[in-house]
Amino acid sequence: MKPNFSLRLRVFNLNCWGIPYLSKHRADRVKRLGDFLNRESFDLALLEEVWSEQDFQYLRQKLLPAYPAAHYFRSGIIGSGLCVFSKHPIQEFTQHVFTLNGYPYMIHHGDWFCGKAVGLLVLRLGGLVLNAYVTHLHAEYNRQKDIYLAHRVAQAWELAQFIHHTSKKADVVLLCGDLNLHPKDLGCRLLKEWTGLQDAYLETRDFKGPEEGCTMVPQNCYVNRQELEQFPLGIRIDYVLYKAVSGLYISCKTLRTTTGHEPHSGSPLSDHEALMATLCVRHSPPQHNPSPTHGPAERSPLISVLREAWTELDQGMAQGRWWATIAGYVIGLGLLLLVLLCALAAGGEIREVAVLLWTPSVGLVLAAGAFYLFHVQEAKGLCRARAELQHVLGRAREAQDLGPESQPAGLLGQQEGDRAEEQ
Amino acid sequence: MKPNFSLRLRVFNLNCWGIPYLSKHRADRVKRLGDFLNRESFDLALLEEVWSEQDFQYLRQKLLPAYPAAHYFRSGIIGSGLCVFSKHPIQEFTQHVFTLNGYPYMIHHGDWFCGKAVGLLVLRLGGLVLNAYVTHLHAEYNRQKDIYLAHRVAQAWELAQFIHHTSKKADVVLLCGDLNLHPKDLGCRLLKEWTGLQDAYLETRDFKGPEEGCTMVPQNCYVNRQELEQFPLGIRIDYVLYKAVSGLYISCKTLRTTTGHEPHSGSPLSDHEALMATLCVRHSPPQHNPSPTHGPAERSPLISVLREAWTELDQGMAQGRWWATIAGYVIGLGLLLLVLLCALAAGGEIREVAVLLWTPSVGLVLAAGAFYLFHVQEAKGLCRARAELQHVLGRAREAQDLGPESQPAGLLGQQEGDRAEEQ
Repeated sequence: MKPNFSLRLRVFNLNCWGIPYLSKHRADRVKRLGDFLNRESFDLALLEEVWSEQDFQYLRQKLLPAYPAAHYFRSGIIGSGLCVFSKHPIQEFTQHVFTLNGYPYMIHHGDWFCGKAVGLLVLRLGGLVLNAYVTHLHAEYNRQKDIYLAHRVAQAWELAQFIHHTSKKADVVLLCGDLNLHPKDLGCRLLKEWTGLQDAYLETRDFKGPEEGCTMVPQNCYVNRQELEQFPLGIRIDYVLYKAVSGLYISCKTLRTTTGHEPHSGSPLSDHEALMATLCVRHSPPQHNPSPTHGPAERSPLISVLREAWTELDQGMAQGRWWATIAGYVIGLGLLLLVLLCALAAGGEIREVAVLLWTPSVGLVLAAGAFYLFHVQEAKGLCRARAELQHVLGRAREAQDLGPESQPAGLLGQQEGDRAEEQ
Repeated sequence: MKPNFSLRLRVFNLNCWGIPYLSKHRADRVKRLGDFLNRESFDLALLEEVWSEQDFQYLRQKLLPAYPAAHYFRSGIIGSGLCVFSKHPIQEFTQHVFTLNGYPYMIHHGDWFCGKAVGLLVLRLGGLVLNAYVTHLHAEYNRQKDIYLAHRVAQAWELAQFIHHTSKKADVVLLCGDLNLHPKDLGCRLLKEWTGLQDAYLETRDFKGPEEGCTMVPQNCYVNRQELEQFPLGIRIDYVLYKAVSGLYISCKTLRTTTGHEPHSGSPLSDHEALMATLCVRHSPPQHNPSPTHGPAERSPLISVLREAWTELDQGMAQGRWWATIAGYVIGLGLLLLVLLCALAAGGEIREVAVLLWTPSVGLVLAAGAFYLFHVQEAKGLCRARAELQHVLGRAREAQDLGPESQPAGLLGQQEGDRAEEQ
């Protein structure tokens, strides 16, 4: 690679709010999104909440000349809603579906049925390997009493681990998506600390968009204003995150965010705002590499966020086990009730009532059984994430105790590994 | 790394057949397994079907002096049954749970409840990064009429993709486990072709064990002989597979397989045979690298196996959709029945019968609903694997048409990437 090498990358991200029959003006918005993407001709357009495959196929046809490569990530029952359009050929793609994603009996929230996931695309641009990830985490329905918190933290950890393990040979890593996490939320800090990804909004010197970079703003006519009551400026839950490795330097030249309406027609494209980032990757000699030199002082935030996440997952696990125990009791009581009803029916006393109650009791036992199995599986999933986290925490502590000279390589992932190789 | 560098790696693999209450002499076999592993002191012991976490904890305590590092991979409801014991510190671990794993209503087979997965360990040995994978795919209950074939092919593909994407920076890749696939089965060929992994049994010049390397043999007193009726010598479904990259050369010095009984006490450790491989990793100059030079002639088997797998997944998808359609009809009929029963009950005709039939009808609609959702999700999962496969197939064909000079890098994964870097 030449020393004056430079690569410019224009990226678009939008949560499209494309729920068939429920989202307002869906067809019109999808059409306008297609027109907009065609006009702007980004390198990559990463979309979330494209729940209808017909919408994806429509966009695919419409965008074919400007974005010859596209992929729709299928998963779960409804789908992940994730898709991508690229100006450049996609070398490889795969996906990882999150182990935990809400509760099947919370039908009105529906996240469980979606199969939330992270999609990975591998592209080769100007001799560089770019790993682009697109994701959408579990929604937050009640910030004060968030029953999905442990699941979202587990998803953030799985996302971070997936990026960590699949990007070891990438030159540039890009993650776009709706994380359903505010910038200071545990999941967001965990993801950033473990992967080393940087936040385009915080890094760029040229930002144009709503105050504080919000991506759900009260100015947007589709936004439920009640949900933003506590946040008069809006909330920032959609992100463009990136990092470069192997002696490369990446910066965000500009970041533009729509402000409640599409720049051309004035109507919003979605209830979320679109993010448009211009990234610049260039070769910089190691002495100018702005990545922090990791050492005990820098590792502390990682240890502290890992500890916090461990506690959250532990609490979630205890709760999952508690629900499984309750379900176990209900199964026991239901079985007792069934025996009692059989005895009553056989004895001829209140026979009709006994027969009538028999089938609902069987239903109760079956439902409690399903509930039990679900929460056993939930506790196992959280336990798995907690074990991975605990291992990383142990190694981070060891490294801190030993000091920077004797840090085991590979602990902080790619960046250190690469640096070690360069030396 | 010194040119005369050499690393010796002793690996143990066993499907432990550790089903609580069902597997014969479990406690005794686990105890003897612990004694055996302590005596032999392998570098890595990778186990499958350790369904009881108590068994893992027992082994962990027993093996602590010889194998200070251990991990149990938790997933699903029962668990993945996978665990690992290592003489060397484990740098990192994670796991991937297969999207498709049988049917929840096939309770007597039970695979769905296990959460079958692939576990990954990253180790650093003598300056090399070793990615060790342990896995267990869906069982084969009826070879003539295998209703799980598409799921097993999808699992083999997910396994291959997981290895492909997570091992790009590893120096040595090792996969052990019970694949539930015969050597010439589609899933096995797909896995080997896409990852480039080599089969220890086929590669070693020093093999001691049952004829044809079988890992389930009629001599083993725990084996169900009826299942082996068609295979008088037994079957080979457990594997040690490996590859080395970045100018390294790996070979299997010796491979030993138990022959229906443990070498010391004479009683078998499980219904499967244990595999014990001694691998040797050494630095070899590129001109002596025995890896085949990929070109159109070598790519043909990949194209052909991808095509075959595509067809299998496509058929599975069609069948999944067919079942979802049938379930849709049953839901419709069930709802009609419910309306009819309500009308009969309201009209006073055969009221008691109508009331009695109402609850089972609701049950029918709910069961058909769950069946519908499951098969929609199954079809989506197969469609996802088919799409990934189709993309790789397209790129393999393009590369074949263009010839070896203009092959896009990265198509055949790591090996080519590394070779390109070396040049």
